[in-house]
Amino acid sequence: MKEIRIGLLGLGNIGTGTYKVLETNRSQIEEAAGCPVNIVKILEKDIDRERDITVPRESFVSDAEEIFSDPDIDIVIELLGGVEPAATMIERALCSGKHVVTANKAAVAANYHRLMDAAKAHGVTLRFEASVGGGIPVLTPLSSCLRANRLTRVLGIVNGTTNYILDKMTMEGLPYDEVLKDAQAKGFAEADPTADVEGIDAANKLSILMALMFDHYVHPKDIPTKGITEVTAKDIEAARKDGCLIKLIAYAEVMDDGQIKYEVRPMRIIDTHPLSGVHREYNAVFVEGNVVGNLMFYGPGAGPLPTGSAVMGDVLEIAKAMDR
Amino acid sequence: MKEIRIGLLGLGNIGTGTYKVLETNRSQIEEAAGCPVNIVKILEKDIDRERDITVPRESFVSDAEEIFSDPDIDIVIELLGGVEPAATMIERALCSGKHVVTANKAAVAANYHRLMDAAKAHGVTLRFEASVGGGIPVLTPLSSCLRANRLTRVLGIVNGTTNYILDKMTMEGLPYDEVLKDAQAKGFAEADPTADVEGIDAANKLSILMALMFDHYVHPKDIPTKGITEVTAKDIEAARKDGCLIKLIAYAEVMDDGQIKYEVRPMRIIDTHPLSGVHREYNAVFVEGNVVGNLMFYGPGAGPLPTGSAVMGDVLEIAKAMDR
Repeated sequence: MKEIRIGLLGLGNIGTGTYKVLETNRSQIEEAAGCPVNIVKILEKDIDRERDITVPRESFVSDAEEIFSDPDIDIVIELLGGVEPAATMIERALCSGKHVVTANKAAVAANYHRLMDAAKAHGVTLRFEASVGGGIPVLTPLSSCLRANRLTRVLGIVNGTTNYILDKMTMEGLPYDEVLKDAQAKGFAEADPTADVEGIDAANKLSILMALMFDHYVHPKDIPTKGITEVTAKDIEAARKDGCLIKLIAYAEVMDDGQIKYEVRPMRIIDTHPLSGVHREYNAVFVEGNVVGNLMFYGPGAGPLPTGSAVMGDVLEIAKAMDR
Repeated sequence: MKEIRIGLLGLGNIGTGTYKVLETNRSQIEEAAGCPVNIVKILEKDIDRERDITVPRESFVSDAEEIFSDPDIDIVIELLGGVEPAATMIERALCSGKHVVTANKAAVAANYHRLMDAAKAHGVTLRFEASVGGGIPVLTPLSSCLRANRLTRVLGIVNGTTNYILDKMTMEGLPYDEVLKDAQAKGFAEADPTADVEGIDAANKLSILMALMFDHYVHPKDIPTKGITEVTAKDIEAARKDGCLIKLIAYAEVMDDGQIKYEVRPMRIIDTHPLSGVHREYNAVFVEGNVVGNLMFYGPGAGPLPTGSAVMGDVLEIAKAMDR
């Protein structure tokens, strides 16, 4: 290959982080790719926003079709967030023969088969490592190193906001409302925290994990989901007396009869369990395979640079496959 | 591909575990490979040993050349253990045009460049995921998902025997000698535990991690190494008073001036650090990348089935690449 040319959809927080990862580690990334790697077109309306990166003005386009119809673009990175118009754009990109990398759990979880089928039909790759666990390698090891296993169970702390809130409630004995305000002030919770605190974000990620691990897709809306808004300081204290912590867990398990149980809800985790050591906004995915036993992947589940690390990791995996 | 035919060197504990992983999850593995996967020849003198698997007698060969010279064998799995004759056999297999999968940290660490160069020269792949962290995906994520990072630091609990001993000393306040005997009785320590308790096994693994993470190879004999034989119950109690645990850590770090520091020795780990939650014979590798931040991979670092899981995972990665 002479060059890997990327079209980027969205230059918000995650898009900016991804751009910054490429700028920061360009020599490393290009050595891994074996050729120059460039983000050549960016779909973004807000050109003048303050971003702490230097983007050539001529990179910006206002119509996504300028990216999809550009024969020189190999890979599209979708970082718009939300189900639509992101999902339609991912599909358009795949149908235009572009490989796609996305961090968008909502769009992938709500359209799993549609998007995977589009990629297959057009002989291109759709990768979404960053959609579960942010910067933590989870989906790739599950679908490479662990493929000789029947994967049977997952317990995930897959939402940083709720783990930050529950951890602070636990460590400092504070009530939910107070900690939520603190989390919002520090940027660990959004102004409208609904998707996080109600477990919707975790359900999106569980849907993707189940599809990948068990080849069993469930729409996130069909996953029984309970958030953390009703967890009280009293609940946490009662759990502590029993040697447990309360964590928001995305849980799924293949039972002996082949049935799959799944739900998202606050659960008690015994304080000797590896998941009990997951503090602050960190994430971890604990999985069980029938021959490997128990594993855990731990790290930063969100943030522009960790997410950008996973996105560029996916770009390099695609580059490796293109090169063959 | 019509079939993946494997030659196996060694049917000891790990070889038997690998054979069992293939037997147990054959449908899963063959679906992932897209074709039948068979271990067709096995180099092993001890044919009659009791092994809880059924191996056709005609699979056994007494001369490794029968495997290397067989044009129908695609992949050689080396599970002899120890530096020699294993390293020479790996090299012979690579030079015969076979892809090689090994779990042998001693052979790989002592001959890193020689073996990697042989693979490159003959256009074949050498994979050794199982050599560090047993069943835990470590090397593959480091060299795929995390390639957009400059990796800067590793702290590994990479030896199950020593972690079992230190953990039991910590949890039960027992002296080293007593716990070592218990570990030997339970099969967590060998009759001659030298390679484990003196840190030699951990140094082998650190050598491989450094070569992969920093592109900087150091022979394991040149890694300053101190084992756990001098750790006393008193040391552990003193650490505990400071809010710390003692763990045998394989440590390496790229300093700001580009120098690399490395050593294996018992270190104090603060009890809020994720590595402090690694109990019993479990392993964990904690790494830092310049854009992703801190990650940890946790799981079973040894054992026939977890190791077999990683070995067969490598076989499937080779199958995927062969298929392209």
